[in-house]
Amino acid sequence: MTQPIQAWAAPGPARPFERFSYDPGALKADEVEIQVEYCGLCHSDLSMWTNEWGLSTYPLVPGHEVVGRIVARGAEVRGLADGDRVGLGWFARSCMHCAQCLAGDHHLCARAEATIVGRHGGFAQRVRCHFAWAVRLPAALPSASSGPLFCGGITVFSPLMEWGVSPTDRVGVVGIGGLGHLALQYLRAWGCHVTAFTSQAGKAADLQSLGAHRVVASGDDRALAGLAGTLDLLLVATSAPLDWARYMTTLAPRGRLHFVGAVLAPLNIGAFSLISGQKSVSGSPLGRISTIARMLDFSERHKVAPVVEHFPMSRVNDALAHLQSGKARYRIVLKPDF
Amino acid sequence: MTQPIQAWAAPGPARPFERFSYDPGALKADEVEIQVEYCGLCHSDLSMWTNEWGLSTYPLVPGHEVVGRIVARGAEVRGLADGDRVGLGWFARSCMHCAQCLAGDHHLCARAEATIVGRHGGFAQRVRCHFAWAVRLPAALPSASSGPLFCGGITVFSPLMEWGVSPTDRVGVVGIGGLGHLALQYLRAWGCHVTAFTSQAGKAADLQSLGAHRVVASGDDRALAGLAGTLDLLLVATSAPLDWARYMTTLAPRGRLHFVGAVLAPLNIGAFSLISGQKSVSGSPLGRISTIARMLDFSERHKVAPVVEHFPMSRVNDALAHLQSGKARYRIVLKPDF
Repeated sequence: MTQPIQAWAAPGPARPFERFSYDPGALKADEVEIQVEYCGLCHSDLSMWTNEWGLSTYPLVPGHEVVGRIVARGAEVRGLADGDRVGLGWFARSCMHCAQCLAGDHHLCARAEATIVGRHGGFAQRVRCHFAWAVRLPAALPSASSGPLFCGGITVFSPLMEWGVSPTDRVGVVGIGGLGHLALQYLRAWGCHVTAFTSQAGKAADLQSLGAHRVVASGDDRALAGLAGTLDLLLVATSAPLDWARYMTTLAPRGRLHFVGAVLAPLNIGAFSLISGQKSVSGSPLGRISTIARMLDFSERHKVAPVVEHFPMSRVNDALAHLQSGKARYRIVLKPDF
Repeated sequence: MTQPIQAWAAPGPARPFERFSYDPGALKADEVEIQVEYCGLCHSDLSMWTNEWGLSTYPLVPGHEVVGRIVARGAEVRGLADGDRVGLGWFARSCMHCAQCLAGDHHLCARAEATIVGRHGGFAQRVRCHFAWAVRLPAALPSASSGPLFCGGITVFSPLMEWGVSPTDRVGVVGIGGLGHLALQYLRAWGCHVTAFTSQAGKAADLQSLGAHRVVASGDDRALAGLAGTLDLLLVATSAPLDWARYMTTLAPRGRLHFVGAVLAPLNIGAFSLISGQKSVSGSPLGRISTIARMLDFSERHKVAPVVEHFPMSRVNDALAHLQSGKARYRIVLKPDF
């Protein structure tokens, strides 16, 4: 017999969260169970809550930026002990034997399972995952603010590794929210020249303190024109439908426009704008498990830390409203109080 | 006093070519003059003839796939001697001192000058260029068919170097004309698995002999569905507006859709299709001067050769009509007969 798990669930699309309890069933041999100490509230939780992507099932228990302690382990689990402090992000399982998994690209596994798609996530007392996706935290990273590294953090850190970003590069970050505010910190620590593009000019001083050398209003066409041909990488961490053809003009030869924010509208970019300067447009989801470990190590060494606002989990509906208002600075983290 | 140059010129957009003579003026100190022995007829010559890109000035002397001999050299020319057999492609000059030129990316120089934009090209007795853009041919490459390497050849060869294509990769070539038929040969010699996408299914046996392991009709949705998730690189060498979102689905994780054909319509690709499989869309123009030299060496070693049809230059109008008919197999080369 397993203990039921107390959680917060939405009974239907965009409906308020309610207390919810479920029986997780027997622990699989390759699974660990994590006692949730903190769980971030990501924009993807919001998209799943409203079923914007058509992937949601209800009751829906979101939450995929978990920090907690291992409290149970299946027989096949290796490398983790009860009591270990770990994080869990967007993915909770991958097949472990396809070409992608065998190449270390577990995040590109076609059968990868998201923590909150078809399963219950971290707005709960406990959550489960395949043991490989529970990554141990370095000692110096605080539990209370590190959850967002496992989704927002890895999402913006991975492109720096994947595309070989150089400390000599000039990089722009478009959209400074939960992801973007981490991107500014990583890029500054990476040695790059960093430009923040934001729709909220009032944030400028904040963004400089986070690492931006320069802050540009994202709709300022004159400022964009002044940056023509200068940026090696533009990291898009917003889902807002901006004028991407115009942003392309800010790229230097060999420049890259890289999406980590789930922009839904077609990009409307012409082949000529790619050809003439040998430019790329690309995207990536989360990152490799091995890169998560490197990100944590880098975060510890460079004191990169999510800037968070805390809510008790019982106030999840207030937290969600705060996120929707666009006023979260910069990431909300829930603390279970069952 | 300089000798006037006999040439073939269009007096206006899409008007028939006529005999034309011009005074090239004094040879610049950094220029060479090349006696044209052969000159390819590229689709870009057609675009310039009709002023499709708005770049043309008339009388227009096209021709930018030249093979010939050095007959004059300015005082600053280094590394070339009179009588040397060289090729000249799309670019005839770059500034030589910007960040791109100093990095060896002369083809990305913002002030690069095309051989037939604002200057007269190779449908002529002689043509001039900056000496760095006249690249010596290895002995075994025949003059009569090597001109197309300097535009079509480098355009499809460069991406293999630039994006680190591996011999283990599965690569598709979309559009098998002047560029595509060279891409098939290069990719086969590179060791890749090669798929040709063509609108003309009748070419299948030909394309296999050029290097394709597999030939797919470019509009065959069922065949494309069967290739889902399998290709590491799709090299687009057509200007036809195909369903690129559908082609994206044929890419494996980390796959790349790369444009060398000047598709004018916006690409209509969604960010999600880039993010989920960590995919890229990119483009490139021609290639580095140093890559041209490597391409020639590779072509010699692997017996990669343009398949050409010859016309005397005095029949340039017939040659153009043949190109427009879509029946050229695969590149037309003109021989001066002034």
